[in-house]
Amino acid sequence: MKQSLGPQTLLAPTPVWLVGTYDAQGKANLTTIAWGGICCSDPPCVTISLQRPRHAYDAIIERKAFTVNVPSADYVKPTDYCGIYSGKDHDKLAETGFTVAKSQLVDAPCVDQCPLIAECKLLQTIELGRHTMFVGQIIDIKAAESVLDESGKIDPAKLNPICFNPGNRSYNSLSPSIGQAFSMGKQL
Amino acid sequence: MKQSLGPQTLLAPTPVWLVGTYDAQGKANLTTIAWGGICCSDPPCVTISLQRPRHAYDAIIERKAFTVNVPSADYVKPTDYCGIYSGKDHDKLAETGFTVAKSQLVDAPCVDQCPLIAECKLLQTIELGRHTMFVGQIIDIKAAESVLDESGKIDPAKLNPICFNPGNRSYNSLSPSIGQAFSMGKQL
Repeated sequence: MKQSLGPQTLLAPTPVWLVGTYDAQGKANLTTIAWGGICCSDPPCVTISLQRPRHAYDAIIERKAFTVNVPSADYVKPTDYCGIYSGKDHDKLAETGFTVAKSQLVDAPCVDQCPLIAECKLLQTIELGRHTMFVGQIIDIKAAESVLDESGKIDPAKLNPICFNPGNRSYNSLSPSIGQAFSMGKQL
Repeated sequence: MKQSLGPQTLLAPTPVWLVGTYDAQGKANLTTIAWGGICCSDPPCVTISLQRPRHAYDAIIERKAFTVNVPSADYVKPTDYCGIYSGKDHDKLAETGFTVAKSQLVDAPCVDQCPLIAECKLLQTIELGRHTMFVGQIIDIKAAESVLDESGKIDPAKLNPICFNPGNRSYNSLSPSIGQAFSMGKQL
């Protein structure tokens, strides 16, 4: 028997990503988002949604670029910090210890401590209501060698990314693999 | 040191959801997606992206509705099945054993075996390239009592949702909680 919980954003899991931007003054900022996801394979695109008051909002409009930085679970505390406080009145890099380097490809900062980064150019801005959805075209993926397996593929056990569960607002990392996609279903 | 992997959809984690639709003939279909995410809190909205040849594509255009059904890891094999084969030449419900009931709120089927379901009305259709992104407004969330904690919140350990990792195409479930969002960052 299922209960009605009303119209709420209670789907799971959602990703936990650090969005990197430069504001009009050139100050780097990081903001944590869980409203986002991959949205197209070709061109490769990702969505991130922000509320208009967020400091990153104006920065993305201004620079037409952002990075999506995947933090490992080791950094869950400073990552949460970047979702609580605003870059308008905080220097979140100094406060968390995260450091950045300017992307060579887009006008946005890459987080040194994040082992997987998508460098994105702003493709579309879609006003939905409380949130604005930005569609970014992934210009390149940068990955630390430490998260690659022997065949050069990203190993989720090494990447150790964070999930957010809107239901009880908990963070989780991943279990060991439970199977191979586009493969295990054929056994049925 | 980070390597360039080129413009690819290699971000993680992504959700694994079953999208439920009725086609023009009224046949229920389920298709598995990992390109999607929550995109707005108010109105509550979710994106799912599909390639135009997918059977669900025409169904969503026709019915202006879909459901997002969250399967638990116990159903990873039939869920993978629904992402491999097309509803155009398969009756995926009969083949997987998934059963559905018509939503009372939107013109789409709800999967009995999925403990968490978002019933969505189509709000926007955004052509991006290989994929089309559908923005659905969440009209209601239905949750099985078995996935709720004592306070009525969705417990991810009970929900046991599936993640997909584009890097090595593995499925994973979640680890136990690693912290509380909007809270643990304040300890910094």
